[in-house]
Amino acid sequence: MRPLAVADLNPAVLNVQYAVRGELAIKADELNERLRSQEHRDKLPFSKVISSNIGNPQQKGLDQPPITFTRQTSNPADRASPALCSQCHSDGSKARDSVSYSITEGCFTLYARNMIEGLVVLTCVAALMEYPPLIDIVKDKWPSDVIERAQQLQAEIGSIGAYSHSKGIPLIRKHVAQFIEERDGFPSDPEDIFLTAGASAGVSLLLNVLITPHKTGILIPIPQYPLYTATLAQYSGVPLPYHLSETDGWSTSLEEIRAALTKAEADGTGVLPRALVVINPGNPTGALLDEKTMEELVWLCEEHSLVLLADEVYQDNLHRRAAHPFHSFKQTVRRLRSPVPLISFHSISKGVFGECGRRGGYFECCNVAPDVRALLYKMVSVGLCPPLSGQIGVDCLVRPPRAGEPSHARWKAETDAIHAALAQRTALMAARLNALPGVSCVDSPGALYLYPKLELPAGAVEAARKAGKEADTLYALELLEETGICVVPGSGFGQKEGEHHYRLTCLCPGVEEYVGMLEKFHVGFLKRYGSSA
Amino acid sequence: MRPLAVADLNPAVLNVQYAVRGELAIKADELNERLRSQEHRDKLPFSKVISSNIGNPQQKGLDQPPITFTRQTSNPADRASPALCSQCHSDGSKARDSVSYSITEGCFTLYARNMIEGLVVLTCVAALMEYPPLIDIVKDKWPSDVIERAQQLQAEIGSIGAYSHSKGIPLIRKHVAQFIEERDGFPSDPEDIFLTAGASAGVSLLLNVLITPHKTGILIPIPQYPLYTATLAQYSGVPLPYHLSETDGWSTSLEEIRAALTKAEADGTGVLPRALVVINPGNPTGALLDEKTMEELVWLCEEHSLVLLADEVYQDNLHRRAAHPFHSFKQTVRRLRSPVPLISFHSISKGVFGECGRRGGYFECCNVAPDVRALLYKMVSVGLCPPLSGQIGVDCLVRPPRAGEPSHARWKAETDAIHAALAQRTALMAARLNALPGVSCVDSPGALYLYPKLELPAGAVEAARKAGKEADTLYALELLEETGICVVPGSGFGQKEGEHHYRLTCLCPGVEEYVGMLEKFHVGFLKRYGSSA
Repeated sequence: MRPLAVADLNPAVLNVQYAVRGELAIKADELNERLRSQEHRDKLPFSKVISSNIGNPQQKGLDQPPITFTRQTSNPADRASPALCSQCHSDGSKARDSVSYSITEGCFTLYARNMIEGLVVLTCVAALMEYPPLIDIVKDKWPSDVIERAQQLQAEIGSIGAYSHSKGIPLIRKHVAQFIEERDGFPSDPEDIFLTAGASAGVSLLLNVLITPHKTGILIPIPQYPLYTATLAQYSGVPLPYHLSETDGWSTSLEEIRAALTKAEADGTGVLPRALVVINPGNPTGALLDEKTMEELVWLCEEHSLVLLADEVYQDNLHRRAAHPFHSFKQTVRRLRSPVPLISFHSISKGVFGECGRRGGYFECCNVAPDVRALLYKMVSVGLCPPLSGQIGVDCLVRPPRAGEPSHARWKAETDAIHAALAQRTALMAARLNALPGVSCVDSPGALYLYPKLELPAGAVEAARKAGKEADTLYALELLEETGICVVPGSGFGQKEGEHHYRLTCLCPGVEEYVGMLEKFHVGFLKRYGSSA
Repeated sequence: MRPLAVADLNPAVLNVQYAVRGELAIKADELNERLRSQEHRDKLPFSKVISSNIGNPQQKGLDQPPITFTRQTSNPADRASPALCSQCHSDGSKARDSVSYSITEGCFTLYARNMIEGLVVLTCVAALMEYPPLIDIVKDKWPSDVIERAQQLQAEIGSIGAYSHSKGIPLIRKHVAQFIEERDGFPSDPEDIFLTAGASAGVSLLLNVLITPHKTGILIPIPQYPLYTATLAQYSGVPLPYHLSETDGWSTSLEEIRAALTKAEADGTGVLPRALVVINPGNPTGALLDEKTMEELVWLCEEHSLVLLADEVYQDNLHRRAAHPFHSFKQTVRRLRSPVPLISFHSISKGVFGECGRRGGYFECCNVAPDVRALLYKMVSVGLCPPLSGQIGVDCLVRPPRAGEPSHARWKAETDAIHAALAQRTALMAARLNALPGVSCVDSPGALYLYPKLELPAGAVEAARKAGKEADTLYALELLEETGICVVPGSGFGQKEGEHHYRLTCLCPGVEEYVGMLEKFHVGFLKRYGSSA
């Protein structure tokens, strides 16, 4: 028997890189393990790991202190006037008693409390779906719209333990289509909607279907969310990178895309550009596209017969809505009466929902021929169906309580407060980062991240080279080891030769304390590697 | 703009076939739609579609009549002595009131009621995970072990809305390892366990990783579960089929596998056999491997340096446990001290659980080098994490209540009854099918299916040929159109040239009425195509 070696495996899979959960995240796991034992804990210069590498709003905050916006967490100082659960009117004090972490910042307390309450409609609907007899127990305690919602879903779905239609529950797809119609002012057909296990599953499916190995080029922004490069590697697609303009707030430039197309043609490798990936709001940049650029992008897709893949999972994370609103590509394509095939992705993992663990999302096909759609249906059938828990999440995402319904006023107040808190935190973090020597940071108008640029001392670049690492990876590793803060080096997202960035989420406990740690580390790093930059 | 055509897409994806949700299932969907409208309903010769094409035990039975073992369903005649929910002591009468379907068979009533109650531990734990404050509402009503289980999981997981570790929650992986150790008597390492969104997701990952496109051969049984051929097509793997012996109860023959290996070598295409897929208990056959055959299979893998992929999702669906017990390949490999790399798959979708909609399962790696395991970890990271709802399902699957715990006695009685009911139904269906002219059917000792063989009249074969279909597809389509029963033609699973089969689940309402419809259709089909066989 010859043992199975890595060299025996699919070379495409070997090429996959996924930095969000790569070297840094594995190191963070190890540190978390060490924090669990008294002996090792005492040797570490921090008491908790803060996973700023991933936009995971509900990450756990109990035996490990809370990193971000968890539902079970609140400010102990707030206990004198506990926030009553809007549904069952309990004050959640049981959950709080087990929380030892002290929160030092008002807006986080607000955010955390809002996360507890703002999501109660979903958790209540979901709990009733798990165990229908609960309706009898809670029907006098919970608002009537929650009960009605759960009963309607139960009548349609039956047991959440059964496989659903492979494209997702028809009634929920109808609700998604209604949501899209109301958002855009153009019709949407439930048959064009596919529910998925998060947006990632949809992106992976579409890339698998569009890519003929080694022959298909996919235009991707740089920096990009590494799902795209990872999946391109997995399916042997050819990335055709186009750079976003950092000096112009990470704007998208048509010239960059045209240059990438020209370069692909000039290469003489016969690679055929097939699709354009646009992430709007951007990840990791947080940039928002204006309508004029969107129109130009659609026309460019027409000109080059490209499929437009619109990753719009952060469409509800807008920090300055008036100046930087969100427009969907579906609306743009319909308004222009364009024939461009468009796939738009959305998710329950982001926005004010942050319901990452349910794995829910959807994509909508627009201008996609029935036989191509049938092929997508065949492919999702092999995976049977998306998780019902995620599908129910999608239903709650696209049907928030409406004005006049019992849950509406509270829902509105809570979600408004969540948006305000995230906007405030993002602006504060950007301002503080920009004040550091050798750091410049676009103040993102959307999404959950900042992507600061670092001018690193030559000594650090040289030390990294000797260690066989990128300089920003060295920076991120030392940050993790010194402070417990886990970020993702820019090399995972892509950047120009010689540039250095990192991505950090704007989800964190105690922004003052957190930014203070970042600042202290940064100044020490510059000193250590011989620069006063 | 040139529109996106099917011919532009990945040719590997075009080749994917998945009969379980293929032509028949799409036709069944259409019929279901027609049943929803009065006008069309009156033109159909049946009042409900029975989806016997898929092992989906909890399929919905409300506005469409129940097809199989749903939790919300019970026998209206049984209402005089309602079965109290073992946890909340409600009789579930609310749910029953909305059920108009009348069940005609004792064992189904029993099975359905058991499904309601047997799964209460899971639904209660899951409901408490959805909405932790429920603990305060139900703590005096539900057994203490349910409450403790939920509290333990809450302490470990925090919110089910957060991404977990990409391999699954560490505590649940530890519980899986303990389950495997108790089952096999050999150690299991939680680091070798990957939780997945059902077994299908695990199989897909492993095939993607093992297959170098167009160069890697994978030995698969014929008949097989079409996930394997579909995924091989998707990843451009080369299927190396080996036939199971129908005349010997669908046994696995080493000679057949050796012949497939010899044929692959003789082909001169340079395809390298890399893995052997074994489905035990078999799907669609229900056959169980004996220990001697398992040892020989392991030795054969050693001899040919094959990875053993053991699909063991039906390990708890055993109809004659004494004569046909289940042995895991993990136990065999460890007992033989074999170095064969083994991946074993399990699922919450089958067994007495049938929790298909949660999408939960796991695979265990055995004799897999750390660097190969790290590569699997990298790949699952790109998909972020399996659904939390499925992960919690896995925890309940591997930790049923133990003797002495408050929920145990009832759990034991209920699951015993579920097993007995399925065994009884399978035996009855096999006997009745065998009594039909031109039908022979191995009486499966395991899994959820029967796979009868049909001797079809020449007239039917000819009619099918003219319609461009396989004869068993013609049979299945006419069965669906006449009775509403949806089965999967044998051509989807594979069979010898000129043979005809179909797969049907042994999950159905009213077995007497159901088998009666099958019999009547079959006799009419033979008459229609000019045979009295």
